[in-house]
Amino acid sequence: MVSEQKTANVSFESLLRIFTVPEGPDSTLTKIDQELSRNLNLFLREHIVAEEKPLKEIEKDFSNPQIPESPAFVSEHTQHLLDNLVAHSVHTSAPSFIGHMTSALPYFLMPLSKIMIALNQNLVKIETSKAFTPLERQVLGMLHRLIYQENDAFYSQWMHSANHSLGAFCSGGTIANITALWVARNNALKADGDFQGVEKEGLFKAMRHYGYHGLAILVSDRGHYSLKKAADVLGIGQEGLVCVKTDHNNRLCPQDLKAKMAHLKSQKIKPFAVVGVAGTTETGNIDPLRDIANICQQEGCHFHVDAAWGGATLMSNNYRYLLNGIELADSVTIDAHKQLYVPMGAGMVLFKKPDAMHSIEHHAQYILRKGSKDLGSHTLEGSRSGMAMLVYASMHIISRPGYELLIDQSIAKARYFADLIKAQDDFELVSEPELCLLTYRYIPALVRQALQQALPNQKAELNELLNEITQFVQKKQRETGHSFVSRTRLNPERWDKLDTIVFRVVLANPLTTHAILHSILDEQRHIATLAPNLMAKIVQLAQRITS
Amino acid sequence: MVSEQKTANVSFESLLRIFTVPEGPDSTLTKIDQELSRNLNLFLREHIVAEEKPLKEIEKDFSNPQIPESPAFVSEHTQHLLDNLVAHSVHTSAPSFIGHMTSALPYFLMPLSKIMIALNQNLVKIETSKAFTPLERQVLGMLHRLIYQENDAFYSQWMHSANHSLGAFCSGGTIANITALWVARNNALKADGDFQGVEKEGLFKAMRHYGYHGLAILVSDRGHYSLKKAADVLGIGQEGLVCVKTDHNNRLCPQDLKAKMAHLKSQKIKPFAVVGVAGTTETGNIDPLRDIANICQQEGCHFHVDAAWGGATLMSNNYRYLLNGIELADSVTIDAHKQLYVPMGAGMVLFKKPDAMHSIEHHAQYILRKGSKDLGSHTLEGSRSGMAMLVYASMHIISRPGYELLIDQSIAKARYFADLIKAQDDFELVSEPELCLLTYRYIPALVRQALQQALPNQKAELNELLNEITQFVQKKQRETGHSFVSRTRLNPERWDKLDTIVFRVVLANPLTTHAILHSILDEQRHIATLAPNLMAKIVQLAQRITS
Repeated sequence: MVSEQKTANVSFESLLRIFTVPEGPDSTLTKIDQELSRNLNLFLREHIVAEEKPLKEIEKDFSNPQIPESPAFVSEHTQHLLDNLVAHSVHTSAPSFIGHMTSALPYFLMPLSKIMIALNQNLVKIETSKAFTPLERQVLGMLHRLIYQENDAFYSQWMHSANHSLGAFCSGGTIANITALWVARNNALKADGDFQGVEKEGLFKAMRHYGYHGLAILVSDRGHYSLKKAADVLGIGQEGLVCVKTDHNNRLCPQDLKAKMAHLKSQKIKPFAVVGVAGTTETGNIDPLRDIANICQQEGCHFHVDAAWGGATLMSNNYRYLLNGIELADSVTIDAHKQLYVPMGAGMVLFKKPDAMHSIEHHAQYILRKGSKDLGSHTLEGSRSGMAMLVYASMHIISRPGYELLIDQSIAKARYFADLIKAQDDFELVSEPELCLLTYRYIPALVRQALQQALPNQKAELNELLNEITQFVQKKQRETGHSFVSRTRLNPERWDKLDTIVFRVVLANPLTTHAILHSILDEQRHIATLAPNLMAKIVQLAQRITS
Repeated sequence: MVSEQKTANVSFESLLRIFTVPEGPDSTLTKIDQELSRNLNLFLREHIVAEEKPLKEIEKDFSNPQIPESPAFVSEHTQHLLDNLVAHSVHTSAPSFIGHMTSALPYFLMPLSKIMIALNQNLVKIETSKAFTPLERQVLGMLHRLIYQENDAFYSQWMHSANHSLGAFCSGGTIANITALWVARNNALKADGDFQGVEKEGLFKAMRHYGYHGLAILVSDRGHYSLKKAADVLGIGQEGLVCVKTDHNNRLCPQDLKAKMAHLKSQKIKPFAVVGVAGTTETGNIDPLRDIANICQQEGCHFHVDAAWGGATLMSNNYRYLLNGIELADSVTIDAHKQLYVPMGAGMVLFKKPDAMHSIEHHAQYILRKGSKDLGSHTLEGSRSGMAMLVYASMHIISRPGYELLIDQSIAKARYFADLIKAQDDFELVSEPELCLLTYRYIPALVRQALQQALPNQKAELNELLNEITQFVQKKQRETGHSFVSRTRLNPERWDKLDTIVFRVVLANPLTTHAILHSILDEQRHIATLAPNLMAKIVQLAQRITS
């Protein structure tokens, strides 16, 4: 790193210096900035995945609970971060990192995010954000229109209305989902006669007032784990999150939804919200949103769509039909840090009706005064950064047709990979891609044949061994560091709903090539041979079954 | 801005280009990066506050709900952001911006935050964060030790323990407070006999099982508005947030706390948490934490300290005594984006006991598997950025003695300003600074005398007029754009607890000089003369009262 003056010496003068904007392109900090960019660029270009070092070893570098008693030079500490943190981080933007929903980012976000950090606005109120507030309202308006397609008059009436809100910008999809269900709960248990509403009197009195014995949120068994958290936090209880059956494509069965709702009501349990999933976390499937919407309308029940992953598909005129019915939802979650390609920390929840959030509105004396346009009166969070700016910039620089191309090529790539897997005689596609996610596992032809013929107890035994090899291959592949797929557990109908560990793939990185997909299968096939005893056991059992 | 190739043209090749790290220091994006830094530095140095333009006008620039159909050049859009957003943002780091808790940032955070954005780690799980996970655990350990001062053996046992967590890193103090009260609620209504715990069965069954008629959280009437939100979200109801009286220094009265708790219990309402405030949002006062801790211990009640603002005072060996008793708290909220001077989006909640968070632990199949060290199993949020890195870096570069200097000088400056206000015959100090916050108002000597002598109805009338002038001065000063103080409403005992609008000042920016404080009073005195009719009314009423 470049040399520098002792900027961080412990005197008040030196402290003042670190708060002062450096002058000119030759200042020490400007040089550090440029050095760091160079280093990061090298890292991002050269490393396939981070340097492999066991977590136990890394923990040793981060084991001191004492806050340092003497200051470090900026340059010295930057080097420390490069050596100990950056070198052992996960290269989530690598084209062969296809295991999670964190992908490469457009590079222009690197310089633009400086604006966010340097201005350090606080979006809770206009007094600390000014133009960032209308900008965030516009971003919410853009997403609202993408989903609900209201006319211009609607947006000019509501987008900047002080006492209304088209949604909330959040740190992520979990907070967005919690916010949606909070609103749904409060609207279901609203003020009525003497009763002042659940927000004032709490859940216990609300239940007694309305004569309910319980509350329920219904979602398919592929719903995101954040909904369980939401049920806990909101006082519904995890038992109140009722799982609805899915079909062979991991999509909620409307018939079962109706049956479950009827059963709940017969027990005086109020189903106050149904969550449709648009892009399940594990398999990328989309629930039949229109059917769910109709059921919810009949039942007078809040319909929320968790489109944290799949919402961006609306950008593609070629695929937005996959989400038909989303425009009937009372609320929708979308994560911009997923398929809108902005950095971590950008979730949104949108509400069909501009007054839906009244039931959670709050005020204070020093900010959020009634009639103010402060965004904080309709958010679960308080102080928030100007992250909406990066969504705004991406919308303008990439534009809708640009996003369409990104979405379309992701789906095309997933179909390509699915076909490739199906063409192998030692791999099995477990879930077909609807968006750009798919799951599969390693299962040599003989073993697959055996699994089909096996008696139930043999089937379970063989499947368990296959789970072991999938786990082994997935872990080893991650550790080897060339590529990364994740793993999860599914219960496919084809295999009698046995617990089945699968490789899970998310193909959102536009830099991932077909060649990489081929090499990932080759590598997995090779890794399987590194567990000869386990493979021998699998083959022997398969031979016993088929012979 | 610099010229560039059409990087954002809508073809897949051009899209691939925006995802590719630019090569060499002469690349277009590197040049844009440098230009932008120069522009931001100029802005931060030159502007006192943002260019004044009415919000209504700014909204016009952010009124299009349509996602653009054609892409913008990066350079072109950057210029658009500089003109329409940056120029109309709030210059929160200006030395004369002393109205809110958002201050200047150390400049080294600008380059270092690039690491966070470029690597785009997701802290929910190790597979997308690797070394960032032990780093965040260390940061939580450092803050835990700052508060609880456990020995080294404690931290080597728990800091990196897979099934434990010393706290949670959150987007801010609100989520931190909600997390603490969520844990407290779940521990108070835990599994017992046939009852499986509130997290499983929900609040209604929990209340019936335990035989409670209500739940209560107690806090002084100076508690942060986020607690009301927490009471709502958690199903307690805002009524369940019970206000405890404060003394003339805005500090909770332990006698009243005891009385309120006894009264609640007599109504079968369970007080499951008391929140002590260490640095009230409006006045910066600190509750008598040790006394509250003792009461909570006797009552078997969770003791949470909201030290979002004041927690950083623990860095100063000279002032940490002000928070004596905090080490007895079951949980503590600290915001790093306040007096630890890191960018927006960094809150934390720490728990005294490493197993306190078990009651909110959650798992999923594809991540957060049991036994994993994934941080996401103990957070309310899901996906999160690597923001902890900036806390880590600041701790090392500023160091504890550096923070001590920053805290000490802020408190000294507040005392200086308090003395200055007291020395004026036309200003009144309303709340004395305990940390670096104070409140005051403009009240010419004659008016103050009249207010003392006035009959109750005259007092109310005069006070109302004073409220009007305070509001007028505060708004006008903000609009004029040289400096900014905020305003809030207090009910000082001295003035019979009348609703009193006051100027609120937060003196955390180390660049704020004594000269600036003098000029702020001069400006306010001058602005008051710009409302001659209102001032004449005030003076006439005062003369009527005193004559």
